Amino acid sequence: MTTRQQILLKTRPEGWVGPEHFELRESVIPSAQDGEVLIRNHWLSLDPYMRSRIAPEKSYAQGVEPGQLMVGATVGEVLESHSDTLAVGDWVLSAGGWQTHATMPAKQVLKLDTDGVPASAYLGVIGMPGITAWTGLMTICEPKAGETVVVDAASGAVGSVVGQLAKGEGCRVVGIAGGAAKCDYVVNTLGFDACIDHRAENFKQQLAQAVPQGIDCLFENVGGEIFEALLTHMNPFSRIALCGMVSEFNRAPYGHHTIRSILINRIKLQGFIVSDKPQTWPAIREQLRARVLGGQLQFRESIAHGLENAPAAFVGMLKGENFGKQLVKLTP
Amino acid sequence: MTTRQQILLKTRPEGWVGPEHFELRESVIPSAQDGEVLIRNHWLSLDPYMRSRIAPEKSYAQGVEPGQLMVGATVGEVLESHSDTLAVGDWVLSAGGWQTHATMPAKQVLKLDTDGVPASAYLGVIGMPGITAWTGLMTICEPKAGETVVVDAASGAVGSVVGQLAKGEGCRVVGIAGGAAKCDYVVNTLGFDACIDHRAENFKQQLAQAVPQGIDCLFENVGGEIFEALLTHMNPFSRIALCGMVSEFNRAPYGHHTIRSILINRIKLQGFIVSDKPQTWPAIREQLRARVLGGQLQFRESIAHGLENAPAAFVGMLKGENFGKQLVKLTP
Repeated sequence: MTTRQQILLKTRPEGWVGPEHFELRESVIPSAQDGEVLIRNHWLSLDPYMRSRIAPEKSYAQGVEPGQLMVGATVGEVLESHSDTLAVGDWVLSAGGWQTHATMPAKQVLKLDTDGVPASAYLGVIGMPGITAWTGLMTICEPKAGETVVVDAASGAVGSVVGQLAKGEGCRVVGIAGGAAKCDYVVNTLGFDACIDHRAENFKQQLAQAVPQGIDCLFENVGGEIFEALLTHMNPFSRIALCGMVSEFNRAPYGHHTIRSILINRIKLQGFIVSDKPQTWPAIREQLRARVLGGQLQFRESIAHGLENAPAAFVGMLKGENFGKQLVKLTP
Repeated sequence: MTTRQQILLKTRPEGWVGPEHFELRESVIPSAQDGEVLIRNHWLSLDPYMRSRIAPEKSYAQGVEPGQLMVGATVGEVLESHSDTLAVGDWVLSAGGWQTHATMPAKQVLKLDTDGVPASAYLGVIGMPGITAWTGLMTICEPKAGETVVVDAASGAVGSVVGQLAKGEGCRVVGIAGGAAKCDYVVNTLGFDACIDHRAENFKQQLAQAVPQGIDCLFENVGGEIFEALLTHMNPFSRIALCGMVSEFNRAPYGHHTIRSILINRIKLQGFIVSDKPQTWPAIREQLRARVLGGQLQFRESIAHGLENAPAAFVGMLKGENFGKQLVKLTP
């Protein structure tokens, strides 16, 4: 096999992104040089941050230009190694991009221990999303037992970990999710104390009932109207980890009228990007891995099959059509 | 003398507060009991937080009810003492309220050292406003030498101290103030690097020119359009101490569309109220006092004369008509 499939950005979307903004191509696989490995990617991770990378506006990382390979984390198997540190057959995590094969320096690749956890978990619960959840919750929110923690996009790759970790800290945990099936999963499988469907007509009423003692920690993934509603329930000295604003990608920014609550309640609102502190990842990953092995962290995956279906799966994820961590399976 | 003048809240203002919301009355001065002192108030402090206390909406402290004495800090002289800790003639700081005389427990009163600093400074530069400036700047913003610090209401009791302290830390300091006279004072007397008149037609252009390296620390007193404009210049990993939103008292809250900047730039935005940490006040006051004595902290006062003029001076202060710390002189 000398060729691979790749998905490139075709044009930058204005407004909603669609499959038409991407293109599939075949290209020759570069041969691995000294110190490099050739990897067969089995799993591609789809994550909301990718939407920022293809937006015309400035974001926190360098964007993907039209004609360039889409960025993304992948889990795969080493097919060929010119490095002492990796052997053929090793399972590895890398920033492989939206492609079936990648050639890259072995030192940019993490060898995986798949004993007791599926390799794909390194893209979700014990990967970047899980580490994001841990970082925002533990270092910004710092929840104490008995406090009320709220997370939106609660059934997703990040939110599901946030809530389960907060339960482990002895908190009351309330999730916000889209639809009854996700809420059912959040409460009955993940063990949250409550979950509110943000599509419900009486969402605000249900929210008020679910947080009778107010909110001490908010892990914010969505932004917009949901964030605004949550802001009105924040307690004095509460903390907000601002992780994402996925509702804001495809429209004019929402106008927030409740900023005064931050003053009156002495709230700490802090934005964060998990990739700012790569040095913290190994220890956090071990914590998460131990909890997965111990059964304290449940997770769920939405799987699209075939690289050619990655664009549609990506768009669907941004619309909330996924249920749990969105992956693309690149092998049969 | 057995009677005193007091100003009570008459009705809660909806929209702009005016002198008609207050009433002056004479009342008998309660005699001082064991452990108490009788104080002749010389100076009454007028501060923006008082507007929150008379608002119908919830704020961070208990409100003043119609018919009750207006709250406020005062500096005065002990006329009569039934306490071992204070003597007749001592100058003291207390929460004396809007009245000419107060009877209160000696332990609720701070004896002042007026050696080298005027007594009124304990209501401003080395009082609550100065301590507010220190707390927000030093514990939330934590500016480093070479960083750019911006403060609005820059000529006021809090803003003037923020900027001078930041200069002392080796920062580039930019003030926002209302009008050319205040800006002239901010630059030429207080020593800020630049000051922008927020009433100028090309305010946004001037702001962009004044912070060519972006903003690392923002000390926010005003809120609304000014805060929104400043948010667009925040640097990655910048900090915002949210101290006040004085522009928001008399109107519907401004709609902020730039919250995404907090995420993208990993900004820490934190509200604070200086009275939350009274245990920190003595040490901070000593730091400020040393800087006043050493000439590193300049200050300016706007003085209204006579308790009967306190309501008009208070309303004027909320409109930015004061220039420096607003006081009422209660003695001839």
